[in-house]
Amino acid sequence: MIDHRPILLVIGILLATLGCAMMIPALLEVALEQDGWVVFAASSVLTLFFGIAMAIASRGKTGNLSLREAFLLTTFSWVFLAAFGAIPFAWSNLGLSYTDAFFESMSGLTTTGATVIVGLDTAPRGLILWRSLLQWLGGIGIIVMAIAVLPMLQIGGMQLFKVEAFDAPEKILPRATQISGSLSSIYLIFTVACAFGYFIAGMDYFDAIVHAMTTIATGGYGAYDSSFQEFNDAGIEFVAIIGMILGSIPFLLYLKGFRLGPLELLKDEQVRGFLIALSFFILVLAIQQSLTSEVGFLTNLRHSAFNVTSLMTGTGYVSTDYNQWGNFAIGLVFLVMFVGGCSGSTSCGIKIFRFQVMYSALQHRIKTLIYPSGMFAINYNGHTVSQQVISSVMSFFFLFVLFFLLLSLSLEMLGLDSLTAMSASASALANVGPGLGDMVGPNGNFSKLPDAAKWLLSFGMLLGRLELFAVLVLFTPSFWRR
Amino acid sequence: MIDHRPILLVIGILLATLGCAMMIPALLEVALEQDGWVVFAASSVLTLFFGIAMAIASRGKTGNLSLREAFLLTTFSWVFLAAFGAIPFAWSNLGLSYTDAFFESMSGLTTTGATVIVGLDTAPRGLILWRSLLQWLGGIGIIVMAIAVLPMLQIGGMQLFKVEAFDAPEKILPRATQISGSLSSIYLIFTVACAFGYFIAGMDYFDAIVHAMTTIATGGYGAYDSSFQEFNDAGIEFVAIIGMILGSIPFLLYLKGFRLGPLELLKDEQVRGFLIALSFFILVLAIQQSLTSEVGFLTNLRHSAFNVTSLMTGTGYVSTDYNQWGNFAIGLVFLVMFVGGCSGSTSCGIKIFRFQVMYSALQHRIKTLIYPSGMFAINYNGHTVSQQVISSVMSFFFLFVLFFLLLSLSLEMLGLDSLTAMSASASALANVGPGLGDMVGPNGNFSKLPDAAKWLLSFGMLLGRLELFAVLVLFTPSFWRR
Repeated sequence: MIDHRPILLVIGILLATLGCAMMIPALLEVALEQDGWVVFAASSVLTLFFGIAMAIASRGKTGNLSLREAFLLTTFSWVFLAAFGAIPFAWSNLGLSYTDAFFESMSGLTTTGATVIVGLDTAPRGLILWRSLLQWLGGIGIIVMAIAVLPMLQIGGMQLFKVEAFDAPEKILPRATQISGSLSSIYLIFTVACAFGYFIAGMDYFDAIVHAMTTIATGGYGAYDSSFQEFNDAGIEFVAIIGMILGSIPFLLYLKGFRLGPLELLKDEQVRGFLIALSFFILVLAIQQSLTSEVGFLTNLRHSAFNVTSLMTGTGYVSTDYNQWGNFAIGLVFLVMFVGGCSGSTSCGIKIFRFQVMYSALQHRIKTLIYPSGMFAINYNGHTVSQQVISSVMSFFFLFVLFFLLLSLSLEMLGLDSLTAMSASASALANVGPGLGDMVGPNGNFSKLPDAAKWLLSFGMLLGRLELFAVLVLFTPSFWRR
Repeated sequence: MIDHRPILLVIGILLATLGCAMMIPALLEVALEQDGWVVFAASSVLTLFFGIAMAIASRGKTGNLSLREAFLLTTFSWVFLAAFGAIPFAWSNLGLSYTDAFFESMSGLTTTGATVIVGLDTAPRGLILWRSLLQWLGGIGIIVMAIAVLPMLQIGGMQLFKVEAFDAPEKILPRATQISGSLSSIYLIFTVACAFGYFIAGMDYFDAIVHAMTTIATGGYGAYDSSFQEFNDAGIEFVAIIGMILGSIPFLLYLKGFRLGPLELLKDEQVRGFLIALSFFILVLAIQQSLTSEVGFLTNLRHSAFNVTSLMTGTGYVSTDYNQWGNFAIGLVFLVMFVGGCSGSTSCGIKIFRFQVMYSALQHRIKTLIYPSGMFAINYNGHTVSQQVISSVMSFFFLFVLFFLLLSLSLEMLGLDSLTAMSASASALANVGPGLGDMVGPNGNFSKLPDAAKWLLSFGMLLGRLELFAVLVLFTPSFWRR
């Protein structure tokens, strides 16, 4: 039997928190003497009302969370938060339909960063802040989930990152509360530091705060239609690169780093792999661009460093129109989007550790082909990896490719061209943001897509953010049986 | 220690056979009173000389084949046959470079069917016959290998198809000889029946024979630049569809079918899966085309049936320019190419059984997520599938996607546009033939590609044909160690 009460209780508390967060843009609008505060105040009241009502209705003695309840909670908390987070967009003076508003909200919470809003530069400041807040909250949300919930659900090899203390579903809620404290402090410190960096590099205080929140969340929402092309400043781009990298490293490692020194971070196989892969892709693209264009190497390196970091970490900031970089760059954009950052961070994609585990499994397989009677163990970060983890990781990869193809095909069925459909599909599943082509590319916008495409992509973002399996189990008959 | 003698002996015998086969187009040219016979006679003498010399030089008491020798033999026999099979192309009056000739020969032997020859309609008949012969020999070659060699090498889950008698590398050669007799008879009967069908449907005797050979081999070489658009005849297309399907079903099952009745074929899970998937894709495309175009459903069904069968079985015949079918069709073409036919047939791609195993593994994974303490077995064709087979299959999938991306990126680096690069890469790895776009698409030709791209694609075809791992092991240090 599934007990709905603990699920509703937690979602109620989360909604109430979201409702409180809506007061921040309301206050900003009041301070700026704009009338947008009404929208946020009304949204806040509605969200608080529902949140508190749900929490109160499910009060009383509840048992501990069962595994199935944990799965339900995982998916539905994101759906509810996205649905209510959309209200300020729907009620704003931008004239967005609820479809558009939900897309924008889901894209925010999942730290994707794909937008349907045209005219960010002149939009109410409260809305710009709200978009950044959604990503910022989504970022810390996924960090806590990736540490406290997902490993225990044994999803896609995440069991590799199981912290011993969290070995049973009953302990999710108390432990999540406990660990989120210290992680949130780190997250907040990084955000403040990043905002300070942006300010020093020349942004005004509003831009600095709004962009710092979406940098550390590897989200990608900004304050301008042209993203970082607005600034065109190497210093600002440098701060962004550091910020995006900080957001893509497992946050639990920072706790260790503070205790044992920052070099501890480099001892982690995933962090090393991420930094090596990132540097490799940046260099390859910069060299290839220098060989094929008139532009000098340093300019190419600057643009390559910013945009590759932005795409690989799943942020989605744009500092130049990489659509124009030719065929090789387009292929590389796909590859880099799929790879993604580290598990346990705000970044997305298939993630570095999965490629490392699959590569080791492949080496192992080849060795076994040559020496069929030999016994070889697969190690990761100094521990032996069980066959079950390998199979989880590979199932994840298969499922990711499968959903990528299905989503691309569905979008093509709705009339999108191949490049748009495939890049939008990859970008949604990997929570990146922009895709390729005129429509969804670096200088495009998702607003002109058909409504059905927006719902499909919103679903894709949710799937990608919750590591596919967490959502998928809800669609299987065996989940609902008995 | 690797003993090179048995390897050279077998390759020598295979080359001598190839040299004999070259006499067939020579005789045709003589009969037609053309001077092309000189090319084939000279190629034949050269190939026979090398083949016999290699066989004689490696005479004497040889031990049995070790596992490593079996791997070396597998890859090198195809490389040698392609290198010598290229000679008639290089020496012909078509003015092909050796790069072009090797590409054409490798594309033939691997039953890919991508061509660099422009002007097939007026090319010497001997050459047209030689292209078909290469595919026909390549087709029976891969059937024998898939039954006698690959399962024993435990490649990519092929161990599922291990015939008990072939459980050790020492037995490969005697058993391959024994089993190839009965399989070759079936192969020959199908080819004759197909040629007869084509003849009845209206082809002349030469076209009927030449196309029958490449139909059953799911190769796709023909006698016209415009492929089956030349005939534009529903009857001929129907014969081709039946022939391509016959070529895509595990040939060992036909032996069983002859003994226990044809319904026995449908009891095989892979055959059922293949037929269901094929029908599904044909119907989806026909319906989608009918909804979006002015053309009637039956015409769409005809074109969909022919071209989807051709692409999914890896044949590569073209009866209409599917480039013009819009974005959904383009996406579907990719999907269908990747899927491919059944293992143990002449068809290629990732293959049905791998998708079935991965799908079962995925279901299993989801069940385990919901019931962590439950024990579930994965079955395939009534047998339990071991964890080792699942991991083999998934490694194969990962490697296929990896090589697809690497090959696409390399082609893009050589200047090809994304659609051309990605479709050529998929088409080579899945041994299909044509790709998408103006250059390598249904009405295009591979001749204008840069030489480096031709070599890369030839390597891709070999990789795809030998199930990736058989070639890949030779590139690992551990293979050569000690």
